[in-house]
Amino acid sequence: MLLHLSTWPEVETYLLQSTGIILPIGSTEQHGPTGLIGTDAICAEAIARGVGEATQAMVGPTINVGMALHHTAFPGTISLRPTTLIQVVRDYITCLSKAGFSKFYFINGHGGNIATLKAAFSETYAYLEDLQIHNAHQVQCQVANWFMCSSVYKLAKELYGDQEGSHATPSEVAVTQFVYPEAIKQAPLSPEVAKGHRIYSAADFRLHYPDGRMGSNPALATPEHGKQFYDAAVKELSNSYLEFVNAE
Amino acid sequence: MLLHLSTWPEVETYLLQSTGIILPIGSTEQHGPTGLIGTDAICAEAIARGVGEATQAMVGPTINVGMALHHTAFPGTISLRPTTLIQVVRDYITCLSKAGFSKFYFINGHGGNIATLKAAFSETYAYLEDLQIHNAHQVQCQVANWFMCSSVYKLAKELYGDQEGSHATPSEVAVTQFVYPEAIKQAPLSPEVAKGHRIYSAADFRLHYPDGRMGSNPALATPEHGKQFYDAAVKELSNSYLEFVNAE
Amino acid sequence: MLLHLSTWPEVETYLLQSTGIILPIGSTEQHGPTGLIGTDAICAEAIARGVGEATQAMVGPTINVGMALHHTAFPGTISLRPTTLIQVVRDYITCLSKAGFSKFYFINGHGGNIATLKAAFSETYAYLEDLQIHNAHQVQCQVANWFMCSSVYKLAKELYGDQEGSHATPSEVAVTQFVYPEAIKQAPLSPEVAKGHRIYSAADFRLHYPDGRMGSNPALATPEHGKQFYDAAVKELSNSYLEFVNAE
Amino acid sequence: MLLHLSTWPEVETYLLQSTGIILPIGSTEQHGPTGLIGTDAICAEAIARGVGEATQAMVGPTINVGMALHHTAFPGTISLRPTTLIQVVRDYITCLSKAGFSKFYFINGHGGNIATLKAAFSETYAYLEDLQIHNAHQVQCQVANWFMCSSVYKLAKELYGDQEGSHATPSEVAVTQFVYPEAIKQAPLSPEVAKGHRIYSAADFRLHYPDGRMGSNPALATPEHGKQFYDAAVKELSNSYLEFVNAE
Amino acid sequence: MLLHLSTWPEVETYLLQSTGIILPIGSTEQHGPTGLIGTDAICAEAIARGVGEATQAMVGPTINVGMALHHTAFPGTISLRPTTLIQVVRDYITCLSKAGFSKFYFINGHGGNIATLKAAFSETYAYLEDLQIHNAHQVQCQVANWFMCSSVYKLAKELYGDQEGSHATPSEVAVTQFVYPEAIKQAPLSPEVAKGHRIYSAADFRLHYPDGRMGSNPALATPEHGKQFYDAAVKELSNSYLEFVNAE
Amino acid sequence: MLLHLSTWPEVETYLLQSTGIILPIGSTEQHGPTGLIGTDAICAEAIARGVGEATQAMVGPTINVGMALHHTAFPGTISLRPTTLIQVVRDYITCLSKAGFSKFYFINGHGGNIATLKAAFSETYAYLEDLQIHNAHQVQCQVANWFMCSSVYKLAKELYGDQEGSHATPSEVAVTQFVYPEAIKQAPLSPEVAKGHRIYSAADFRLHYPDGRMGSNPALATPEHGKQFYDAAVKELSNSYLEFVNAE
Repeated sequence: MLLHLSTWPEVETYLLQSTGIILPIGSTEQHGPTGLIGTDAICAEAIARGVGEATQAMVGPTINVGMALHHTAFPGTISLRPTTLIQVVRDYITCLSKAGFSKFYFINGHGGNIATLKAAFSETYAYLEDLQIHNAHQVQCQVANWFMCSSVYKLAKELYGDQEGSHATPSEVAVTQFVYPEAIKQAPLSPEVAKGHRIYSAADFRLHYPDGRMGSNPALATPEHGKQFYDAAVKELSNSYLEFVNAE
Repeated sequence: MLLHLSTWPEVETYLLQSTGIILPIGSTEQHGPTGLIGTDAICAEAIARGVGEATQAMVGPTINVGMALHHTAFPGTISLRPTTLIQVVRDYITCLSKAGFSKFYFINGHGGNIATLKAAFSETYAYLEDLQIHNAHQVQCQVANWFMCSSVYKLAKELYGDQEGSHATPSEVAVTQFVYPEAIKQAPLSPEVAKGHRIYSAADFRLHYPDGRMGSNPALATPEHGKQFYDAAVKELSNSYLEFVNAE
Repeated sequence: MLLHLSTWPEVETYLLQSTGIILPIGSTEQHGPTGLIGTDAICAEAIARGVGEATQAMVGPTINVGMALHHTAFPGTISLRPTTLIQVVRDYITCLSKAGFSKFYFINGHGGNIATLKAAFSETYAYLEDLQIHNAHQVQCQVANWFMCSSVYKLAKELYGDQEGSHATPSEVAVTQFVYPEAIKQAPLSPEVAKGHRIYSAADFRLHYPDGRMGSNPALATPEHGKQFYDAAVKELSNSYLEFVNAE
Repeated sequence: MLLHLSTWPEVETYLLQSTGIILPIGSTEQHGPTGLIGTDAICAEAIARGVGEATQAMVGPTINVGMALHHTAFPGTISLRPTTLIQVVRDYITCLSKAGFSKFYFINGHGGNIATLKAAFSETYAYLEDLQIHNAHQVQCQVANWFMCSSVYKLAKELYGDQEGSHATPSEVAVTQFVYPEAIKQAPLSPEVAKGHRIYSAADFRLHYPDGRMGSNPALATPEHGKQFYDAAVKELSNSYLEFVNAE
Repeated sequence: MLLHLSTWPEVETYLLQSTGIILPIGSTEQHGPTGLIGTDAICAEAIARGVGEATQAMVGPTINVGMALHHTAFPGTISLRPTTLIQVVRDYITCLSKAGFSKFYFINGHGGNIATLKAAFSETYAYLEDLQIHNAHQVQCQVANWFMCSSVYKLAKELYGDQEGSHATPSEVAVTQFVYPEAIKQAPLSPEVAKGHRIYSAADFRLHYPDGRMGSNPALATPEHGKQFYDAAVKELSNSYLEFVNAE
Repeated sequence: MLLHLSTWPEVETYLLQSTGIILPIGSTEQHGPTGLIGTDAICAEAIARGVGEATQAMVGPTINVGMALHHTAFPGTISLRPTTLIQVVRDYITCLSKAGFSKFYFINGHGGNIATLKAAFSETYAYLEDLQIHNAHQVQCQVANWFMCSSVYKLAKELYGDQEGSHATPSEVAVTQFVYPEAIKQAPLSPEVAKGHRIYSAADFRLHYPDGRMGSNPALATPEHGKQFYDAAVKELSNSYLEFVNAE
């Protein structure tokens, strides 16, 4: 059930049976010479909708710009500052929890969002408790990173070994190829690819990762792989979501 | 050209010929008993992409949650506070202007966003000038409201007369029916519909507009009307965009 | 009744009969070679006090610095950033609504304030509702722009035609001449005056409007005209204020 | 020279000979049963203009709402939060220092403003240095409290002894009587008046100071006294201002 | 009783008999050629712990970085901006007041903290009242500056006369020598030392106070003096604390 | 080399040979019936100073209050909100990087700080780049959690097996016993201890972890173990620090 394709009375009815909602969150950032700038949002959105179908859960609008400051030396990247993203998340949860939602399951497509999301959850719990919102104590948030699902991880290892890398990975590129086969890109990729340098400022990132990839070989990706990753993630996260909403 | 389906080298190439970008912005808010919660984002996104195709312009990711605090007494509505949305816009423009974009054309689907967007533009110009960003003086932002296009306005008048109303209007519902024919909703609509009360707090809004509509009869909408509105808006805004990017 | 010339027990008594208050808001910004930097505050304050007398309404202190970032490339301009002005308005309304005021009527002298004021109202309604302030649902804010009164507009058209322009207008200059006849300025005005360029950054504004005027010929202003504008605005806004405070 | 009655070319000319500006700051807060709510702004403004005349200094618009949170349990009081006032001051000084002003002399009428003003100055110096504004190192701010002038203090002691108190004092009431003789208020004042309790929350303040006075007997005030205080303050602060602008 | 060496059940027990807590606050800033960068935190912490022992009061963790922006042109200085420190203080008091503390006694070692602390107290009282926290009206904060104790002042006058100065003073250096005799530093001190220049920006400060001292001769300090200052401050502040917690 | 026991000329000298600094960060939060509220700060500070000695690195003042909002339902806990902590970290790094430091190594004693610290690093890199601070691109931050050292983890496993738990662990309690043998606490501990519940709001946390422990048996701790943990952590983190400062 997609929130943006629902009416408010439908939401009201939904809330009679569940207080859970899935919120996809991605990023708008460079993904190497062949990866789509929307990769993280595309993956998170597709998988979140798959989980929503599998579990009858409400799926909210995709947060398609996240925390990607370290990628901003590449054109096309858009990032919120962490303090902005914290306010965004606080606003989402405040609105939805007043309406009766209390289980917020963020399906996330970007590693760089994790820290800020966790900080945002803490900030929000305290804000709702400060305001003495009626269901403040029931509000629970969780971040679920599709790319860290054990089934996804295992599959990536099998298919790509060390060439999976950690940014602009073949696994995420594969998912975007599955979702948008019309947007598969070709570009020469240097056989050697930087890896192992920690992430600091945007300028430093570009200096060390000149084409944007981090140890990955996205040329290995295929739409078929993408379907496999998609299926694995949807299955694993559907279980995880149900466990989350059914837990105390 | 869709930013999320592009690679960073493609953006780099794009910037050689244009510094313009279209940013769709909508809202996630109640639209009466039959209107989709995503109406404003759906319309803005569809029209923005149409304009992008017509003008070869880059189209960024849709800001699908806007300033809809007055609708938050209806379940399913999500809103940013104005101060949050200002930070979001500031972050978008700061990232993109550093990369070389300087003409920001927001195609907007929600009246409630206008004031905050304008405030955000002022805040951002001053921030960029304070930072002495190299192209600070060139940065220009404009908000273009598809529903205020004269061709759209005229068509709505012809088709619906007074029943167009001002929220959950048949014109915007029609566009969503055109875009998502599979999500056309039916629900009984009281023949009498509130109108004329100004907008204050969320509780006050719901008190005066109990089913969420403001003077509108969305039952008049059809997907065919939606196509007409879409075509009119794309045409008019394409001209407007080109004028904007070509102006000094 | 002027708040600054009242005592707190007088305010307490006033609140027994009315919860309305008029808040004048202007700006401190360049108004061309002959316009006073305080023009917008002077006009708003004078007219607000006139309305206060005509309607027995409480008139608060004048917010004499507003949102004028686009004028800051001219010396003497002072501006709040939109996010600052939002906090200022929130603080005013929070204090006053706790004391029992609930109808806030901003008489505004500066177009640049409108967007931020509207954003501030939304922010404030939500803040008061979040805090569960006792009268949060009753709080209503309205911005009334004296220069957009139909009677004012009509008079300006009659007196000045196209030479009214849109900044440093003869109508506003006339009101300041009526209020401060001792501060009528003379300076050569180029017969040609820039107009039609949209407002972006401060540097861009000065580039396109080198003497600060926007299509106006303030040399046409006279103190007598000022009295006419003043009378028209006071009359029209008095009716508007009464309608506002008496509405549900 | 009053900024609000000047034109921008006049400001430009002024800056050729001086970079100093006087900014009056008061408060809008209860001043006991007979004191005007605008007392602190009225005094600061009148004295600031007197100093401006005596020294040929530019006088900016009056900040008529300050930090008076502890008075907000009395109706009619309006206060900025300290964090808001800091942003306001930062915005004023940023605008004016970019235009070439560098000596900011705040003539203050309210003890409650002092701490926040000092905090704001520190915040602003650092902000301007962070931005590397061209004259950041030259910017200097000073707060001058007219009621703490030694001549004022001595006169208050002579005229009122212990009945001067520390809020709604006869000295400040006298100045308002001198400035606004038409607004002299009469009300019964209990002979016993609370004093000596420190200032904490607004509720606590009203509990301990039930009529708003702090140890004062404003019934002793006369307009003639007001003139004496005014003259003393203007003289002493004029010297202080000149010393400030002429210092390195 | 030191909070950091207590368990939460011990705190619970403490709250049955007292709602008071002592919070030491210092600074991390240059203190001239021989003064320790931690001087203000060291003094505040030692004296606060002495007061805690003498009065059986709870002593919280030391805020060892304060508001020292004007010292930041010297390496090793760390400062919070005033707006940051206000949030820090607000967070401390919000947490502790929810737990039942209501008397907050800040023992302060740095003059530069005073203004911001006072602003923070005002901000916090209003925040707690806005939230309608159960004990909001009881919360009371006080700043006690050990170096402004009359006994300390008198002793410094006796021992050092005019050579006490106002920053990197022999009295504070003496206390650090008493607390950390192993960290007594030697360095040549110019016999002439700057004084009398007001504090503005960091660059301006270093320009006028090139070695960081303000009119002081810290070479006069001895550990024995330090013990005397410590004893005097502990005695005087213990009385002050008891008066504070026992007052209404 | 301890920053608070150094003078500014000593810092200046240090910067000639190294731009690295260690910043201990802990928390002030409940640690079960027998754990000290300052546990996380105590451990971080002790280990950081050990590392500082071993590597000749500068060690800054301990951030002894961190992000512990989920513990605030237990008395004695003090927490910053994430947005406050982000500002604090930004202020520290801004001051220190202007002075020439560029390698910031946070030795952390509290899992709850990690997310916010990482968010703060991102926020800060971008802020420094926005400001165009001279060494913005060189600034690098790293968080090193002593309790996640592999040697520490292995030792805890050997000594305590499953009874290590995840909060108020015997390993961290042991370190505090080693550092403060005089503050070893005794209290009855229920043999059954809650575990496995995720962390959400403060009220929820206390509901599920009624005595504050998370799956741990701190009664197993001894000061001797503490020494072992201390030694292991100092050794491992010293290597890690040197690798960090020597890396590009």
